[in-house]
Amino acid sequence: MSTTPPKRFETRLAFGLAGWLVLCFSAASLGAFFMPGEWYATLKKPLWNPPGWIFGPVWSALYAMMAVAAWLVWKRGGFVAQRRPLALFLTQLALNAAWTPLFFGLHWPGLAFAEIVLLWLAIAATIAAFRPVHRIATWLLVPYLAWVSFAAALNFTLWRLNL
Amino acid sequence: MSTTPPKRFETRLAFGLAGWLVLCFSAASLGAFFMPGEWYATLKKPLWNPPGWIFGPVWSALYAMMAVAAWLVWKRGGFVAQRRPLALFLTQLALNAAWTPLFFGLHWPGLAFAEIVLLWLAIAATIAAFRPVHRIATWLLVPYLAWVSFAAALNFTLWRLNL
Repeated sequence: MSTTPPKRFETRLAFGLAGWLVLCFSAASLGAFFMPGEWYATLKKPLWNPPGWIFGPVWSALYAMMAVAAWLVWKRGGFVAQRRPLALFLTQLALNAAWTPLFFGLHWPGLAFAEIVLLWLAIAATIAAFRPVHRIATWLLVPYLAWVSFAAALNFTLWRLNL
Repeated sequence: MSTTPPKRFETRLAFGLAGWLVLCFSAASLGAFFMPGEWYATLKKPLWNPPGWIFGPVWSALYAMMAVAAWLVWKRGGFVAQRRPLALFLTQLALNAAWTPLFFGLHWPGLAFAEIVLLWLAIAATIAAFRPVHRIATWLLVPYLAWVSFAAALNFTLWRLNL
């Protein structure tokens, strides 16, 4: 007889998923402090600037996928076995959290662009580290990298158009 | 007659303080994922390396002071009036959260040192931005800057001693 009944194991997994979701949406919530206001409205925008309502749903989906991806990797042995991939994941999450204060808080698109380039590299490194661990987790991060590529292009353009 | 009774205002302040504490201790909790383990134990250490038990209480006190400092500034008009100081504060908090995954997660003291230098600059900029807003909030961050200076020196030494 096992000393760890399956029920207990499942509870642990469910708590783990909840934990990753809370963590990712905590980082996301930093974005809510600095909503695009007057300053953003007055910026010159490129023709391909997406409508404002698109960002909320897209980011919500991306944070949820991010949390599930981290959870899938974490399930395979926790922080001990997956130290390096999860460290890269948390690094990209912290860089993600820093972008909104830099752009919408400080109104400093140049610094925010430098930061989003680091974020892009950290996401790419996380994807590379997830790849040998869990195939679905890897794919769950691809839309995120694509969106951050687009966001970086938009950030760069907004910076150069409004010097 | 006022439409906002004082009781309601006080409730809002209390929730604000709770919010800042949760935010700062969430950043702190990232540190708990990667406890100093075998790798850290085998690192060559300088003679002035402090005993391990010191870090927990020191960081707990520093995170609490940090939260109170942000709250004191936030009380003076919220994110609209204090956009810039609070954006700097959140930037330093994100950089703070990134250090543990880089050092204890990736075992990459060189990159962690580069990052802690950015953290130091972000804290110094936050202190400078808090200064005209709230004197006590400013002083509450000074021990934090002092400790991060020490931590940066320790990080640098651990990096160079273990190349």
